[in-house]
Amino acid sequence: MKFNAEAGGRKIELNSADDMGRTFTPMELFLVALGGCTAMDFQWILSKQRQHVDRLEISVRGKRRDEDPRYYERIDLNYAVVGQNVRKEAVERAIRLSQEKYCSVRAMLKDFIKLNISYTISNGDGGPKKFIYEAPMPASSTGLPDR
Amino acid sequence: MKFNAEAGGRKIELNSADDMGRTFTPMELFLVALGGCTAMDFQWILSKQRQHVDRLEISVRGKRRDEDPRYYERIDLNYAVVGQNVRKEAVERAIRLSQEKYCSVRAMLKDFIKLNISYTISNGDGGPKKFIYEAPMPASSTGLPDR
Repeated sequence: MKFNAEAGGRKIELNSADDMGRTFTPMELFLVALGGCTAMDFQWILSKQRQHVDRLEISVRGKRRDEDPRYYERIDLNYAVVGQNVRKEAVERAIRLSQEKYCSVRAMLKDFIKLNISYTISNGDGGPKKFIYEAPMPASSTGLPDR
Repeated sequence: MKFNAEAGGRKIELNSADDMGRTFTPMELFLVALGGCTAMDFQWILSKQRQHVDRLEISVRGKRRDEDPRYYERIDLNYAVVGQNVRKEAVERAIRLSQEKYCSVRAMLKDFIKLNISYTISNGDGGPKKFIYEAPMPASSTGLPDR
């Protein structure tokens, strides 16, 4: 199945999973939206903290349920930062602010969707270091009512 | 701000709202994902009901909050069907099944996001007719726990 999406003259073609490989499926686009949303906050917050970032790569991976509706029951998100003297605390803070305060796509997600968040920092001082981001408890995380 | 998204060799460019107009922003892509997801279910369910659809157009419009996170507090969704002898009941049923059972993007949305759903049927017998879709109560609508 194929659809053409258009917004103000800009176009994108969508395919169902059967035709996967040529364009994006709606569920893939959802991951792109989530990754893009948090990427922009993250980058902006890091720059406010005067961190020197040469390159930022966000990877997003979703695991769908087996039953309908086949939404992502788990989403793995990794923020990979390549820079100079980028501090771990600054990265943690940028992730936290994006996840809890700024990322609009994230804020719309139901709490039963588990987000596993990690980050990687490469400062050119002996290979990338990978860390697990520990989210605060859900109740205090978004500050938003659940329904 | 600009990001390049890639999935299995397929690419899409993302822009922040400041650069809007050239490509898609993450929040626009989210609406494309939602519209595309329900469009595919809807089309499939209508075909199972042997409805003759010549053209299907889904429009999605979101109203963002003023405060951070600036998620969509309201989403207007219209299903416009052009066909031959397309029955109102079949369209209602396709919307209901997509919204409650199949649409994976929809299923991930928190309940405080208000969806206003309408549909338009054009059977070539005197102009399109527009209807409001009345969703069942939220508690019974998704069959999913809220968190």
